[in-house]
Amino acid sequence: NVFDFSLGNPDLDPPVAVSDAIEELAKCRDKNFHGYMPNAGYPFAREAMAKKTALEQGVDVSGDCVVMSVGAAGALNALLKAVLNPGDNVVVPSPFFAEYRHYVQNYGGKLIEVPVKDDFSLDTKALEASLTEKTAAVLINSPNNPTGKVYLDEDIKALSEALVRHGKKTGRKPYLICDEPYRAITYDGIKVAPVFPVYDCAVVVTSFAKNFSLPGERIGYIAVNPRCPDKDELVAACVFTTRILGYVNAPGLMQRVVAKTWNAEADYSLYEKRRNELVSILDEAGIVHANPQGAFYLWCKVPGGDDDMAFCDYLKKHLILAAPGSGFGGRGWFRLAYCVSEKSILNSRNAFINAMKDFKA
Amino acid sequence: NVFDFSLGNPDLDPPVAVSDAIEELAKCRDKNFHGYMPNAGYPFAREAMAKKTALEQGVDVSGDCVVMSVGAAGALNALLKAVLNPGDNVVVPSPFFAEYRHYVQNYGGKLIEVPVKDDFSLDTKALEASLTEKTAAVLINSPNNPTGKVYLDEDIKALSEALVRHGKKTGRKPYLICDEPYRAITYDGIKVAPVFPVYDCAVVVTSFAKNFSLPGERIGYIAVNPRCPDKDELVAACVFTTRILGYVNAPGLMQRVVAKTWNAEADYSLYEKRRNELVSILDEAGIVHANPQGAFYLWCKVPGGDDDMAFCDYLKKHLILAAPGSGFGGRGWFRLAYCVSEKSILNSRNAFINAMKDFKA
Repeated sequence: NVFDFSLGNPDLDPPVAVSDAIEELAKCRDKNFHGYMPNAGYPFAREAMAKKTALEQGVDVSGDCVVMSVGAAGALNALLKAVLNPGDNVVVPSPFFAEYRHYVQNYGGKLIEVPVKDDFSLDTKALEASLTEKTAAVLINSPNNPTGKVYLDEDIKALSEALVRHGKKTGRKPYLICDEPYRAITYDGIKVAPVFPVYDCAVVVTSFAKNFSLPGERIGYIAVNPRCPDKDELVAACVFTTRILGYVNAPGLMQRVVAKTWNAEADYSLYEKRRNELVSILDEAGIVHANPQGAFYLWCKVPGGDDDMAFCDYLKKHLILAAPGSGFGGRGWFRLAYCVSEKSILNSRNAFINAMKDFKA
Repeated sequence: NVFDFSLGNPDLDPPVAVSDAIEELAKCRDKNFHGYMPNAGYPFAREAMAKKTALEQGVDVSGDCVVMSVGAAGALNALLKAVLNPGDNVVVPSPFFAEYRHYVQNYGGKLIEVPVKDDFSLDTKALEASLTEKTAAVLINSPNNPTGKVYLDEDIKALSEALVRHGKKTGRKPYLICDEPYRAITYDGIKVAPVFPVYDCAVVVTSFAKNFSLPGERIGYIAVNPRCPDKDELVAACVFTTRILGYVNAPGLMQRVVAKTWNAEADYSLYEKRRNELVSILDEAGIVHANPQGAFYLWCKVPGGDDDMAFCDYLKKHLILAAPGSGFGGRGWFRLAYCVSEKSILNSRNAFINAMKDFKA
């Protein structure tokens, strides 16, 4: 009877085509089917991801721009090790996915947090002001975890222009790393802005964890903008870091699965429905929250204070599990993951309403 | 028509029980079947690996001693990040698996190479002499890649005693890390010595890459000696580093496969047969080599010199691909991986004989 909104573990089934492909490919007993392949991944998998990236970004992409990875987290680690010198920093709009801090620190880097605007959109002026000669990359996440915000084309364009200006001024153009595991999960017809057409030193890291509900299988990739001046060196460096960090290669069977099914149709309307239901409950309970345009998180304000740890502890008494915002660089906020059953959401109504009633009392 | 002995990509088929399990488990469409699980891995998978470890080590092991990993390379990286402070060193008998140097350097450590004896057994006196207060771990690999040597019980015991002495003297007892992906692949009835009964701070890292021919699927684990004084802290640290290095968890489907099939019967006699065939060819050609007791490598002496790079280049002219020994810390040697078809081995006879004839001429 606990309402667990604490985990981002997708709860829709994988698309049928994906489950079919897993079943079908697992039958194969060809020689070396589960053997090593190049560290960058199967050439056919890289080609397929290049096609997907080309569709999403609206520019031609070839397989040699892609490195298959152990999920988006593995992709980010391989990429950050490739681009960071010790002492470098990575600028991130805040709130942000909590693990970024670790990933950057793993390679001697420092995360520089730049708060977003009140509507959770990018504060491009503040981002520009935070850039220094030590800035190896700006790391954005759209749709954002935890706010659900999708950054607009004009914000991406403004940020890109700022990065170009900074590069001209300092001689060091930061990479723009786009962490996009939630790209496909957007609502109300909103689309994630393509970055490759507006900024050459752009890199996408992503996975099939959230869109295909395969997070435990660790399959993702890195896609480098074909227009990136040091594209070949960067791809080679990512292949090398994939190897020496001990990933070695992305899981082979799953590479075959996503190569075959990357454009499988998936229906995220259930997430949208749950968002609407949870929003209506929060509104009724009087909890202020962001209006997510994608992913499956509701970013909520701690009522009458900023101690999110204490408030999440308090919510536990009402059997509601939430993630404190401080971990995401968002003190005074908390995150509800609505990748849970509709029944659980609907049943949580009284818990939220009572929790808020008692809290105010 | 190239005789490619350069890669350690196992060429036997996976055991039938393993292929059957992959096929069977891939059919399952249960809710959350491919979802996140605890970073340490499925509890049932940890339990199964504990059983396997208990059988191999001859001591009781419980599931909470095990962390599932993205192959043995992922296991080593998570473990080394957990145990290394910057400036620490890791002692390794040399020659050694070339990637160790990267894995140790990834976390600010330094690899200290200690040559093995002429028969490729451990030089425990030299190993003991190399220990300092900076020594976080000694890393052994049995059967060894590249020499194929299996370390004897008495050598492991002597090394353990040296580590205990060093620990008493300095207050810092190094971990003994046993990298054992080839444990099952031994010949002539030789068994890999158990380490847990003789040394408490011992950790096994391994995978199902070589014994089950699944290297591309990235499934392995870390098993900590239940008698290790800081067992719980070390396991917790490995779970944490698995998470923050972006592995997140070992691939889920493959965790299920090995949990079900870890004790599947496998027949390595084909590797032994190929070893014998290649040995007979090398002997006929006059190439001096180690007598491997396990794994699938022949460690060979460069004839009349020590420039292994040049000699491997020379062998290419005779269509033989070999790995230069320098990468393994073994200048003057080269490695032949005989995980290739019997036909290819038999057909390489003339190439080896001609290469040596021309070389001497």
